[in-house]
Amino acid sequence: MKEQVIQYLKDQRDRHLKELEDFLKIPSISSLSEHREDTIKAAEWVEAELKKIGFHDAKVMETDGKPVVYGEYTTDESKPTVLVYGHYDVQPVDPVHLWDSEPFEPTIRDNKIYARGATDDKGQVFMHLKVMEAVLNQDEEPPVNFKVLIEGEEEIGSPNLPKFAEENADLLKADLVLVSDSALIEKGKPTITYGLRGLAGIQIDVKGANSDLHSGEYGGGVVNPIHALVKIVDSFRDENNRILVDDFYRDIPELSQEERDALAEVPFDEDQLKKELGVSELDGEEGYSYVERTSVRPTLEVNGIYGGFQGEGIKTVLPNEATAKVTCRLVPDQDPDHIVEQLTKHVHANKPVGVEVDVTPFDKGKPYVTPFDHPVIQKAAKAYETVYQKDTAYIRGGGSIPIVAELDRILDVPVVLMGFGLPDENLHAPNEHFHLENFDQGMETLTHYFYLLNE
Amino acid sequence: MKEQVIQYLKDQRDRHLKELEDFLKIPSISSLSEHREDTIKAAEWVEAELKKIGFHDAKVMETDGKPVVYGEYTTDESKPTVLVYGHYDVQPVDPVHLWDSEPFEPTIRDNKIYARGATDDKGQVFMHLKVMEAVLNQDEEPPVNFKVLIEGEEEIGSPNLPKFAEENADLLKADLVLVSDSALIEKGKPTITYGLRGLAGIQIDVKGANSDLHSGEYGGGVVNPIHALVKIVDSFRDENNRILVDDFYRDIPELSQEERDALAEVPFDEDQLKKELGVSELDGEEGYSYVERTSVRPTLEVNGIYGGFQGEGIKTVLPNEATAKVTCRLVPDQDPDHIVEQLTKHVHANKPVGVEVDVTPFDKGKPYVTPFDHPVIQKAAKAYETVYQKDTAYIRGGGSIPIVAELDRILDVPVVLMGFGLPDENLHAPNEHFHLENFDQGMETLTHYFYLLNE
Repeated sequence: MKEQVIQYLKDQRDRHLKELEDFLKIPSISSLSEHREDTIKAAEWVEAELKKIGFHDAKVMETDGKPVVYGEYTTDESKPTVLVYGHYDVQPVDPVHLWDSEPFEPTIRDNKIYARGATDDKGQVFMHLKVMEAVLNQDEEPPVNFKVLIEGEEEIGSPNLPKFAEENADLLKADLVLVSDSALIEKGKPTITYGLRGLAGIQIDVKGANSDLHSGEYGGGVVNPIHALVKIVDSFRDENNRILVDDFYRDIPELSQEERDALAEVPFDEDQLKKELGVSELDGEEGYSYVERTSVRPTLEVNGIYGGFQGEGIKTVLPNEATAKVTCRLVPDQDPDHIVEQLTKHVHANKPVGVEVDVTPFDKGKPYVTPFDHPVIQKAAKAYETVYQKDTAYIRGGGSIPIVAELDRILDVPVVLMGFGLPDENLHAPNEHFHLENFDQGMETLTHYFYLLNE
Repeated sequence: MKEQVIQYLKDQRDRHLKELEDFLKIPSISSLSEHREDTIKAAEWVEAELKKIGFHDAKVMETDGKPVVYGEYTTDESKPTVLVYGHYDVQPVDPVHLWDSEPFEPTIRDNKIYARGATDDKGQVFMHLKVMEAVLNQDEEPPVNFKVLIEGEEEIGSPNLPKFAEENADLLKADLVLVSDSALIEKGKPTITYGLRGLAGIQIDVKGANSDLHSGEYGGGVVNPIHALVKIVDSFRDENNRILVDDFYRDIPELSQEERDALAEVPFDEDQLKKELGVSELDGEEGYSYVERTSVRPTLEVNGIYGGFQGEGIKTVLPNEATAKVTCRLVPDQDPDHIVEQLTKHVHANKPVGVEVDVTPFDKGKPYVTPFDHPVIQKAAKAYETVYQKDTAYIRGGGSIPIVAELDRILDVPVVLMGFGLPDENLHAPNEHFHLENFDQGMETLTHYFYLLNE
């Protein structure tokens, strides 16, 4: 039956791509309140899609934030049950002038589909929906039972999903959670992500006088909030890019030589990456390789900074406020709550006189690592290898899917991170895209996987 | 005749205020190219106004930038000739949401007129025009010959006026230059500014990768331009707020005890100022008083900073560029060209690896100090004292009117800085306003001054 399923996917490809475009057209940006309606629209789109392919009881379910979409299709209780998790929300699109085509007008160029959400994560969610459609259409005895949980707040840290999962743990009961929200480590290389960094962040608002001031009249006399903010932000790291926040590294076990050797095997071409990014040097925490720094070491990055005059030319103002947005990627066993607490203390301890500082925490996520010798992970590798004809790489991802650690904890089953993106697909940046070769090969891989799970 | 002139100004006050509102309605922002037409409109408004009051040959004259308005009214070559300088251009208005009324819809509240340009400098330019109108209307033998030069690029550093003044030095020939573009040191206190700080500035653009990156995938591995910018900006000053740019203080003579004593006499109420500004502390260069720091010491202020995500909430991006706008206020004998050169060197010397940095200089102005025992300055003090009934304070202003040093050099006559603003009138900030008591008393003072100049 597997062969018919795969043939069906090939036959329906054009129609499927049109449907994917419809999904990508919905500007379901979760972090901006003006897109609230669009997130609902995306949820309803997924619900309708599930119903169309045979999940007759699919429904949009409320949470304390944006709704989730849930559906299930049970064939035979004795067969394995797969819970597919993904998200319909996307990142903001600014700076929008750097996009070569409109972020919500999907465009196919050079066998890649360009749009916000193309790879993260609508494109990958859509692949699951289409494989399920194909299986249910072609096979009267599907190999597994399907459950689907698609949320709308992943890009803002899934603040409401843990509560939802706890309250609906019975509904979500499965033998494994399957997530396609990550990337192959390089073109054509099967990749299973067995660890993810966690996330913790704060916004720092520095306030000075009650109004902008003339820099000639008051400059030199009144503390400039930009100077204060810059001093605080620069105090986060030393000259070797070690983070100076107290306890930041406290709970992280030293990397074993074995782990370092394994990470040294991860394919990485420094010259190629520098060329691709257009930078003269790569730099980061001293004493660790690029691969280590971007996967198993924690980071602190300023995602945005602003204050004062941003127009063309000059405005001799002494501004009265300045803001920085800071997020940390965390590794086991850093605790997001403790890190936010320490960041906050650090900011207050480094605050210059003459300004006030507010610190607002962002939503947080725990880091996650899972053993990769579990049968459901080994079967995922086998499925990949059948299609891609290469050995699977097991990696720890630099990014964060905070809900993964939570689903693992609440449902107590393995979470399989089987992604089909590529690292250079500009997720979270202008010109996000998804390679259609992985759209095709990915759906074939998922088909193999579902059948393998029942062997 | 003086009395009739003053009576005329009182009689015509309502009409004059309506005319001032028309002038203030023109959004003649010189730093923003989209307001180019508005600056021309403002120039033409001044030209028409001059013609109306009797300067029949008044004209808009081209420069390499925005035009200047020139007019003259010569009664008697043996009488003193006053060249009144001012500017019709204004600062940008952002952040516009902090204005209580529209910046270009002048509103009178509590005997103050609120609008961008109300005090800096349209309101003060307008006072001169109305005093001239009154003199020419009431006195067949005006006490002085008038020349008027109103430019449109003061707020961007008067880049084209020095060349214009050099080429038109004969036309502009006068016995003194009179400028009302400064403030009384406090309510009701006559104030002559005998020195001004100069100006030098740069924009720092830090560039990283060719696109924004995902902070999870690349964070810790690729240099974040915000981190680089923050390091550069924080390197400008030490913990005592001394500027660390090489040669920054090299050409500044030590303050004499006599000067320090005089500055200690300047009325200054620290608690009052803190309360007014809403700040808990005032801080700045160690070893100098607030008054010294804001008038006779040089400063380096970041006027704006920006990079990465500025929206609501969180976006886990590693941005690819970050910018800071920096201006210095200079004191004798700092040389703006040398300071810009040193700032640029400092930025490059403190640039971290992995990013590129562009430095763009802004237009510059030399600092200025003039002897205040010159008769035309002493007569200005007498005019003030006649109306305000208080002794005159002689101060060095913290702000910069770069063209003042240039006019002094090119025309080789004293420049009298006789301002009628107040320090808390929010110039360059939201809710700029002008106290109408100084509109009235200022015009009376100017009237006395013109008659005193002929005694």
